[in-house]
Formats: sequence, C-alpha cells, structure tokens
Amino acid sequence: MKVTILGTGIVGRTVAAGLGNLGHEVTIGTRNVESTLASEQQDAYGNPPFKVWYADHQNIKLKAFKEAAAQADLLFNCTSGQASVAVLESIGDEILNGKVLVDVANPLDFSQGMPPSLSPVNTDSLGEQIQARFANLKVVKSLNTMNTFLMVNPSMVQGDHNVFVCGNDEDAKNSVKEVLKSLGWRENLIIDLGDITNSRGTEMLLPIWLRLWGALGTAEFNFHIQTN
Amino acid sequence: MKVTILGTGIVGRTVAAGLGNLGHEVTIGTRNVESTLASEQQDAYGNPPFKVWYADHQNIKLKAFKEAAAQADLLFNCTSGQASVAVLESIGDEILNGKVLVDVANPLDFSQGMPPSLSPVNTDSLGEQIQARFANLKVVKSLNTMNTFLMVNPSMVQGDHNVFVCGNDEDAKNSVKEVLKSLGWRENLIIDLGDITNSRGTEMLLPIWLRLWGALGTAEFNFHIQTN
Repeated sequence: MKVTILGTGIVGRTVAAGLGNLGHEVTIGTRNVESTLASEQQDAYGNPPFKVWYADHQNIKLKAFKEAAAQADLLFNCTSGQASVAVLESIGDEILNGKVLVDVANPLDFSQGMPPSLSPVNTDSLGEQIQARFANLKVVKSLNTMNTFLMVNPSMVQGDHNVFVCGNDEDAKNSVKEVLKSLGWRENLIIDLGDITNSRGTEMLLPIWLRLWGALGTAEFNFHIQTN
Repeated sequence: MKVTILGTGIVGRTVAAGLGNLGHEVTIGTRNVESTLASEQQDAYGNPPFKVWYADHQNIKLKAFKEAAAQADLLFNCTSGQASVAVLESIGDEILNGKVLVDVANPLDFSQGMPPSLSPVNTDSLGEQIQARFANLKVVKSLNTMNTFLMVNPSMVQGDHNVFVCGNDEDAKNSVKEVLKSLGWRENLIIDLGDITNSRGTEMLLPIWLRLWGALGTAEFNFHIQTN
C-alpha cells in the first residue's frame, strides 16, 4: 500500500519506519523538502535532525505535502496538532477527497503553561475539526493515546492494553483496523468507540497521559480498559 | 472513624454503605433532612427514593450538611459537581478548616448536550477550585474515574485496575490511601499522581469513560495503566 505520513517529527518518523518495515511504500510529507533536509536542528527531546534519520531509512521517500498526499492510498496525520488543519488546507480538498486519514495528532496547547493543555477541547476536538473542514476526507482518529514507539510495536508494553478507533466511515475504520492488526494490535484490544465525536474522549486522555509519564517516570505504559 | 458523606444520590449512598460495612460511623449530609426523607422521587437511573434506601441502612445517619460535616473525621464530596462549591460554602470555612475531603465529584455539564461535557476543564478542575476556595481544607481527589459500585468493591471488575489519588497534603493522601486499602484497593494499584492540579487529568477521563460505557454496554469496567 502507498502510505503517506504528514509530519517529520518523531511521531511521523516512527510511524513511517514501522509501516516501511511491513513492506508498504512509505512517503513522508513535509512543508519544504530542501529545508527539512538542510536542517541541523535536534527536536525538544534530543532526537537527531531529520536528515540523519532519513539517511538510515533508504526505503522511505520525502516529498512536499501536496505531492506526498496525492499519491497515497492511506494518510497519517502526524503533524503538530496546532498546525494540522493548516497543513491539510495546503494540500487541499481536491487531493484529500475520498482518502482515509488516520489522525494521530493531539491539539496540545503549550501557551497555558506545562504540562500542555488542549485546544480545542471538551465540546470539540481536533479529529472533529478536521472532519468538519474536509467533509469528503474519511477521518479515523487512532493511536493518539500512547507513546509513539508503542504505536508500531504494541509488545513494547507487556500484557493487554488498548488502542482506540473512531470515525464516521465504517469501511475506513475497518481498513485502519487491518493496518493496526498488521502492526501487532490484537483485534480484541482494538476498541471502536463509534463516530468521530469520540475524538473528544481520546484526546482528553492526554492530560492524564502526560501526568502519568511524570508520576511513573517512563513513557512505556498504556491504557487498558479492564472488563469482566 | 466518623465519616460524613455529602450527597444523597447513588454515589453518596454507595460510598456510605461501603464505609458503613467496614464499621465506620457514617453520616450522610443533605441540604434539608425533612425534604430528603419526604421525597418520593426516583433518580434519573431509576434508583428508589432516598427514604427507601435509608430504611434498609439503619446504621447510617442523615443530618443537615453543616451538622453532618462538623462531627466528621473524614469527608467525602459526593454531591453533583456543579453544586459542590456551593454546598461547601454552606458548611463554611470554620467547620471545614483542617479536615480532609475526598473529592469524588466530577464537574459534569449537561447544558452542552449529551454525553455531558466538563466545566471547569482543561486549565482548571473541580478539585482545584475546591482547594483554591478552601485553603485549609485538605482536598484529596480520588475515586472519580469509575462506576460508583466499583469504588467500594474493586473486585467487581476482575484483574488489575487502578484508582488515582492526588492532593497537596501528604498526610491527608496517606490517610485516604489507607481507607482505599480497607475498601479492597491493593496498594500497588493506587496511583499517586502528585498535587491537586492533577485533578484535571482524572476529571478529563470522564468523557472517554462515558463513551466507553456506551461502546462496551456496561459500566463494569475500569482503567488499568499497563506498565512493564
């Protein structure tokens, strides 16, 4: 499958590598290919510049957002949540119409102090805003409730734990569930919450996720919904 | 221990019964004793009027909020989240100063449609608002992330699952953890998130809790933080 990952940060890189390892034809989309490849900057977590990672992943291509999205069978939104709608606007309805977008982003708002809060929140969500703006894009919110390395390697945390899925299009959700299964997510651990309004619920897990990261001293954990 | 439960709804009744079964001297506080005992109304979930439940729980007393709180070694806030601050205002600083309050309430806001949203949320929380208003009350947020029957009977859901605790006073948190352990919560499943600002994280679990209730078709579930 031709998969395009929007975003060159650690989430985009990790999802790209995970899907590349499964044999998919993976392209990463960025605002400006030249400046992404020229950058010498580490990110806030000390990850190396993109070009260092890129040199180690010869199976993955880098293209401008629009060109990268145009060829995709499946899109992953791994951009910063505050930038996501603008990135999708720059790609445009004509290319996005009819495609499936897995929205992995969270609308983290660093303007109100640390840990970040969310914007939008509570009566709206990023997943809903993307779906509302691009009516013919099939938005599936998923994978946004965990550390990025866990997204593509669920066995990194032992035992049972869950990944949530929500969206308005059943076929799109089913195709995303197949991708999740191929990444190692067992079917009984994939929780389908329903339509895209459930993005509010999964995005609002971020505040406690960030606090658990502090309290536990590790990001190697995940939510498990324990039932009888 | 003399424990006072603020609130006569299903949460207050269930916590009261659970603590009464452990041998504590339990009093429920209400706005008006006479009208609470006169009411013939079922609640929104079809639970019987308070007086029916009360007749079956002869070990539990009912008093007006102020009188009930005055005699307590430990308080539980089981009022509706939108009413909690006003109820505590009616009790007053003089009685509340120095006491420990377990804040079980969530600030569910039904004015924005169903499922309810939260108010306050994101950059504030009910736990923080109570602590800010009553500086000498020792607020410990806990038990607000699960079905009320599970609060006092954790084995109702099989396997490992968690209860969160946060608050500014270490001694108060430790005394609440002892109560949780006496209710059946194993020490390694009690997660101390830190100070009262962590209330934001636990209250913001409610939106996905409500959606999981719908998706799973049962309230008999709980969050488990799966770690290595």
